[in-house]
Amino acid sequence: MASEEVIELAKRRGFYFGSNGAYGGTAGFYTFGPQGSALKRNVEDAWRDRFTVREGNQEIQAPAVMPEPVFEASGHLDTFADMLVECGECGESHRADHLVEDASSIEDAEALPISEVEMLIRDHDIACPACGSPLAGEGVEEFNLMFKTNIGPGSGQTGYLRPETAQGIFVEFPRLKEYARGQLPFGVTQIGPAYRNEIAPRGGLRRLREFTQAELEQFIDPEEDEPDLEAVEDVEVLLYPAEEQEAENGSYVETTIGEAVEEGIVGSAWIGYYLGLAQEWYERIGVDVDRFRFRQHLPGELAHYSADCWDAESEVGDADADADTTTPGGGDWIEIAGFSYRSDYDLSKHAEYSDDRFTVFKEYDEPKTVERATVDPDMATLGPKFGGDAAAVADALETLAERDPDAFEADAVSVEVDGETVTVDTDVANFSVEEVTENGEHITPHVVEPSFGVGRTVQTLLAHGYTEDVVSGEARTYLDLDPEVAPTDAAVFPLVTNDDELVGLAEDVADDLRSRGLTVAYDDSGSIGRRYRRQDEVGTPFCLTVDKTGLEGDGPDTVTVRERDSAAQVRVPVDELADELTALLAGGDFAAFADQYETVETDLETQ
Amino acid sequence: MASEEVIELAKRRGFYFGSNGAYGGTAGFYTFGPQGSALKRNVEDAWRDRFTVREGNQEIQAPAVMPEPVFEASGHLDTFADMLVECGECGESHRADHLVEDASSIEDAEALPISEVEMLIRDHDIACPACGSPLAGEGVEEFNLMFKTNIGPGSGQTGYLRPETAQGIFVEFPRLKEYARGQLPFGVTQIGPAYRNEIAPRGGLRRLREFTQAELEQFIDPEEDEPDLEAVEDVEVLLYPAEEQEAENGSYVETTIGEAVEEGIVGSAWIGYYLGLAQEWYERIGVDVDRFRFRQHLPGELAHYSADCWDAESEVGDADADADTTTPGGGDWIEIAGFSYRSDYDLSKHAEYSDDRFTVFKEYDEPKTVERATVDPDMATLGPKFGGDAAAVADALETLAERDPDAFEADAVSVEVDGETVTVDTDVANFSVEEVTENGEHITPHVVEPSFGVGRTVQTLLAHGYTEDVVSGEARTYLDLDPEVAPTDAAVFPLVTNDDELVGLAEDVADDLRSRGLTVAYDDSGSIGRRYRRQDEVGTPFCLTVDKTGLEGDGPDTVTVRERDSAAQVRVPVDELADELTALLAGGDFAAFADQYETVETDLETQ
Repeated sequence: MASEEVIELAKRRGFYFGSNGAYGGTAGFYTFGPQGSALKRNVEDAWRDRFTVREGNQEIQAPAVMPEPVFEASGHLDTFADMLVECGECGESHRADHLVEDASSIEDAEALPISEVEMLIRDHDIACPACGSPLAGEGVEEFNLMFKTNIGPGSGQTGYLRPETAQGIFVEFPRLKEYARGQLPFGVTQIGPAYRNEIAPRGGLRRLREFTQAELEQFIDPEEDEPDLEAVEDVEVLLYPAEEQEAENGSYVETTIGEAVEEGIVGSAWIGYYLGLAQEWYERIGVDVDRFRFRQHLPGELAHYSADCWDAESEVGDADADADTTTPGGGDWIEIAGFSYRSDYDLSKHAEYSDDRFTVFKEYDEPKTVERATVDPDMATLGPKFGGDAAAVADALETLAERDPDAFEADAVSVEVDGETVTVDTDVANFSVEEVTENGEHITPHVVEPSFGVGRTVQTLLAHGYTEDVVSGEARTYLDLDPEVAPTDAAVFPLVTNDDELVGLAEDVADDLRSRGLTVAYDDSGSIGRRYRRQDEVGTPFCLTVDKTGLEGDGPDTVTVRERDSAAQVRVPVDELADELTALLAGGDFAAFADQYETVETDLETQ
Repeated sequence: MASEEVIELAKRRGFYFGSNGAYGGTAGFYTFGPQGSALKRNVEDAWRDRFTVREGNQEIQAPAVMPEPVFEASGHLDTFADMLVECGECGESHRADHLVEDASSIEDAEALPISEVEMLIRDHDIACPACGSPLAGEGVEEFNLMFKTNIGPGSGQTGYLRPETAQGIFVEFPRLKEYARGQLPFGVTQIGPAYRNEIAPRGGLRRLREFTQAELEQFIDPEEDEPDLEAVEDVEVLLYPAEEQEAENGSYVETTIGEAVEEGIVGSAWIGYYLGLAQEWYERIGVDVDRFRFRQHLPGELAHYSADCWDAESEVGDADADADTTTPGGGDWIEIAGFSYRSDYDLSKHAEYSDDRFTVFKEYDEPKTVERATVDPDMATLGPKFGGDAAAVADALETLAERDPDAFEADAVSVEVDGETVTVDTDVANFSVEEVTENGEHITPHVVEPSFGVGRTVQTLLAHGYTEDVVSGEARTYLDLDPEVAPTDAAVFPLVTNDDELVGLAEDVADDLRSRGLTVAYDDSGSIGRRYRRQDEVGTPFCLTVDKTGLEGDGPDTVTVRERDSAAQVRVPVDELADELTALLAGGDFAAFADQYETVETDLETQ
C-alpha cells in the first residue's frame, strides 16, 4: 500500500480519488482530478517522446471494444481468468489463490490446479475475510477477467473491453506493415485504456478495473535485426534474476546493460536494450533509482511462448518505514512495467484465426536458386491399383518428395495412406528435381513488448516525491516532482489584491509565461504562506510573488522567485523571467541562477 | 458522406480505417493510424489550450465504465434509445425512424410515437434495405444505446460504457467544487472516449460506436454570473436559427456574437460566449469558415430541461460538388459540436438519486435577517379532535404557515388533509413569526455545456484540407492542414543515400529540429518527387532537402526549404533553419521569409 499520507494528499489536492463516491463508490475505478490528470498526461507525453518519437516508431489509437474472435485468437477467452470463490454465507467474492497464499507458505497459488486450491482452502480452514464463515466446500471456478458486452442490437456480436492495448496493434498488423513499407524492424505504440474485471480490486491505483497502458510492439526479424545496444550499454541497473529469487539468500545484481546481456543474465539483446531505455526514462521523469529494480519472471510466471520476461518494479511503501531497499525482501514493491520477448506467438495466432496475412516479405540479398523436388504421379497406373485412394497416394508421394527426396533413388518407394503402408515403383511417381529462383520468403516477425502502466507510474512518482521537512521552524509537505511531469510549471501570486498596479503586473506576468508555453497557476486567495503550501503540495517547482518592493524605484519591475525544494527566494527583473524559468524548467541549476540575483530573506512562506 | 478521395487517402496514408479488417471488420469502430493519431492529438491539445488552460478551467479524467445508478439519475437508462426494427426475413437491424424519413417527407420521425412509426412502415410499404422483404407488421422497439456490462463476478453490479464524458464530471461535482474552493463560476473539462451502441452505424467517423468527446461543463450561478462577452462580441458568425429553418425560404443570419445576443437570436449570453470562442477556435485549427455554421435546435429537438441549444456544423461533401454553402440546403452538413444550456437538470437529478449534495453555498454580501413563520400546534386539542389524523393536520398547518402566513390573521384556518377540508381555531396553531439571520443559501448551479466531437473535427479538417492542383504540369494532391494540427512539422530528405557527408548533415538537421521540439519525419526512400508527394498527402507544411549544392563552397551549409501549398523552394543556411521554421510554424509568412533567401528553380518535386 502507498502510505496513508500520499493517498490523503492525492484525494485532497485533486490527484486521484475513488470514482462515483456520491453513489457509494465503485471498487476498482479511480478518477484523476485536475492535478492528477495533468501529471498523468505529462507522464504520457514524456513516454511518447522517448518510446515513439525518438525511437522513430509509429503511434496508433484503436478502439477499446473489440469483437470476440480477436480474443479467441489471442487466447484471452480461454485463459485470461482468475480463481474465484464466493462465500455461501455473505455472497462476497474472493480470489481463491490469494486466500491460499495468505493462509499458507505457498507463493504462487495461481499456478495450482483448481482441485488443489479447493483442497487447500479446506485443509487450512480458510474463512471468508468479509463475514468469517468457513469457505471449505465452496467451489472454486475460473472467472474470465474481460468485461463482456454486446455490439449492436440483439442478434449482434459479442464484444469485450480489451484487456491490453496490444491487441489493437496486432490485429492491424497487415495494414501497419504497409505504413512501414514492409521493412523490419519497426515499432508501433499505443497509449490508452485497458480493462480487467478484477474479482477483488484493491490497493488504490495498483489493481484497477480500468487503467491506462503505454505499450510498444517492436516487430523484428529474429535472424537479422539487432537493437542499438551501444546506446545503452553503460546504463547501470539493479537486476533481480530468477535464480537469485529462487536461491536461499539471493541478492540483487548491480551491473550495466552491456554486461548483463554479455553475460546472459538478460537473455535477449532486445530486452536488454529496452531495460536500458526504461531505466534512463524512469530516472528522467523523477523515479528514485534507489527504489527501483528489474525483476525477472520465474519460470512458472512465464507464458509458454515467452522466451524471457522482466518487470520494472518500484518501491512505494511508507517513507517513514525506512525500508532497506538494497537487498531483496525489504519494502513494498509493485510492478510498473513489463518487458517480454513474445516470439511470433501473437502474429501467428491472428494469422491462424483470421483471413489475413501476418507476415512480411523478406527479400534475399541476391535471388536464390533452389532445387525443388516434385513428383507428377502417373494416375493411369495409380487409379486402377488404388481406386478411391489414388489421390491420397499421389499426395503422399508429393509430401515425401518435399521431405525426403533421397527416397526416390531406390526402385520402389513406400508411403503411408490412412495408416497403411503402400509401395509403388519409383517410375510411377515421375520424380524430378527442378531449379527454382526465389527472391525472398514470407516470414512472421517476432515481437518484443515493453508495456508500461501509466497509473502505477503516477503512483510511484507521488510516493517517491512525497517529502516532509521543516521550513523556518514549521513542518511542511511538498512533492518533489520533476518539472517535466509536474502539473504546473509556475504559480503567480499578487501579494495583495487591493493594489491595481500590483495585480496588473501579476496578471501580465502570468499571461506572458503562458504565451511562452508554460503552465501557470494564478492564486490570489489566502495568505502567501498558505498559497506556497498549496503549490508545494502539488509539486509546483517555482512560485512567483509580485510585491510592492518590486514596483518601487527607477529600475525595472521585479518579482520574487521561490524554488520549491529549498524554499530559497531571489528577486528577478520581470523581463528576464520567461527565459530564466524556461532554462530552469529544462533542468537548469537553481543555485547558479540564484547567484546572479538578490537573495530575499523572508519567512513569509510560513505565515 | 466525405468524398471517396478523402476516405481513400485517410486509409492509404494512415489517418484512419475501419477496425479489425482481418476479422471482417466491426461496424462503427475505427482505428486512427499514425497520421490520424497525431492529427487527433494535436486537435485535442489545441482544444485543451483554448477551453481548459486559457479559460482557467480544470481538466479531469474519469473511467468510461460507470455503474447503473448514475444512468438511472441521468435519464439515459430510460430514454437514451433509438427505434429498432429487425427484418423477420434476414435478421438485419435498422433504425425505424430513418427508414420512415427516407420513405416519406417526414423530417423528424424520432419524435413520433412507436405505434405511429409502425403504421408509417405499413402505409409506405417500406422494405428491408438489406434483403427487400416487406417490414410491415414487424414490431418497432426502443433499443437502449448504452453498451451494458457486468462489474465484478456474478453477483456484482451492472455497468455501462458512458454515452458522454459529461457524467464523469457531474457525479464528482461534490468533490470538484472543493477543488474550486466552492466559488462559482468554474468550469471542468474532459477529453475521452464515449460509447453509443448504434443500431446501424454508417458514414465513417460520423456515427461511431466508440468516439472521442471534448466536453466542458461550465457551472454558474444563473442569477449572478455573466460571461466575458466583450472578448468575443465582434466575432462574426453564420447563424441558422430555428425560425429560419421553419420558414419557407429561410436564410442564414450573418451577424456578430454581440448583436446575436443583444437581439435575442441567441438566448443565453453564456451560449453566445462559447459560440464565439468556438468560431475563433475552429478557424485557428484550419476549419474553412465558408463551410461552417451554427444551427439552432428546433423546438422538437430540445431536451425538456434545455433552454437553448445550438450545434456547430461543418460541410464535408465532395469538394468537386461545388456546393453552394451560402444558403441553407446546399452541401453535406454534419454536427461537430453542441452548445447547450442545461439549467440545473444534471446536478438536481444526481442530488435526487444519490446521497450527496450537489449545491454550493452562496454567501450573501451581508447576512440577511429574514422572518420565518412557524406554528407549534397544541396536540392536546388536536389529538382528541382528529385522532389518528392529528399529526397530518399539524403538518398541514406548518406547510400553510410557510406558504401563506397571512391565513393565520383570521380567527380560524382551514387546511386540507386526505382530500378533506379541516378547520381549526387559529389559537390552536400557536402561530408566530421569528426573525432569523441567514449568511447565505445553498444553490444548485446551472450548467452550460459546450461539447465537441473530436473525430468529426478530424474528418472536417481532412475534408476542408483536401486539395488537388497542378505543380510543374503534374496533378498533385495535398492536405492544407494548419501547422498547429499537422501530424508532422517538417520532413528532412537526403537527396542521395550514398554520400556520408550529405546523409550526416541530413541526420544532424533532423536531430537539431527535434531537439527544438518540432516533429520531424526523415525519409530517404524513393525519388525526391515521391517523397514530396508522400508529405504533401499527409499535410506536412515544410520539406527540407539536403543536396550536394548545399555542401559546396566556403559559405555555411545550406538546405532547400519547400513550402507545401505553393511548392516554392528557397535555400536556407542550416544554422538559421530552426529559428526560421519555428517562426513559420507559429504563423509566419512564407513569402516574406522566402524573400530573404535564394529561390531554387526546380521541377524536382514532380520527378
